[in-house]
Amino acid sequence: MELRPIGCIHSSYKTLADAPRQGRWSEEIVQLEIYAAYEDGLLGIGKHQYLIILYEADRADHSRLQAIPCGGTAKTGVFSCRTPNRPNPILFCVAELIDCQGRFLTVRGVEALDGSPLLDIKPYIAALDGQPKTD
Amino acid sequence: MELRPIGCIHSSYKTLADAPRQGRWSEEIVQLEIYAAYEDGLLGIGKHQYLIILYEADRADHSRLQAIPCGGTAKTGVFSCRTPNRPNPILFCVAELIDCQGRFLTVRGVEALDGSPLLDIKPYIAALDGQPKTD
Repeated sequence: MELRPIGCIHSSYKTLADAPRQGRWSEEIVQLEIYAAYEDGLLGIGKHQYLIILYEADRADHSRLQAIPCGGTAKTGVFSCRTPNRPNPILFCVAELIDCQGRFLTVRGVEALDGSPLLDIKPYIAALDGQPKTD
Repeated sequence: MELRPIGCIHSSYKTLADAPRQGRWSEEIVQLEIYAAYEDGLLGIGKHQYLIILYEADRADHSRLQAIPCGGTAKTGVFSCRTPNRPNPILFCVAELIDCQGRFLTVRGVEALDGSPLLDIKPYIAALDGQPKTD
């Protein structure tokens, strides 16, 4: 499957060392630029409070199958943790939509490195996407 | 970006007409087969109750930028609704893990068509991925 970026993420995180482990706990404002060819896909986006953002970790290592999660000491499978280093490095986060101006969206809650290719945007729907319990 | 399937989804939904609009509201049991080359990535998966599943809607129309959502009458942008017909048809759902046996996972809450390519599995973490409010 060949993916084409629908846009680009502009953030203040220039290197992995700059980025928070999880954007969810950051107040940092990030801008999503949607390329002009895809602008028609944004119709109605402003009514959503939260968006699911899928983007490519384009500086990730695709070859790894196991990793030691932050704060841990034991190896775990990449499908059992959230490391960006995984066979298909599609990263996922739920972002708060702050503003939209044409093909530029201002969001909070994204830990993407500056320049990361944007792959998809979907509205977050709590009844579908949330689960009360977790581990 | 070129993606390689890490496995395949086995479900009873053979055509779009068979599949529920959202798997979340279905009790259907679905099996995820992870290919042998990626089995090491599953280490520790059994401890998670909910998993984020990313898969390809391989029968989707990539060319559409707008759609009329189910139950609606007005066109909306594909990034503002959950239609599988979108430029990069990566579908997302939160599934409940029922059982794991080697490289086969049994889950509930996936509406994928039989044979859909599996792209990634991540543990669902409520504190990261859930949002109390929605629209």
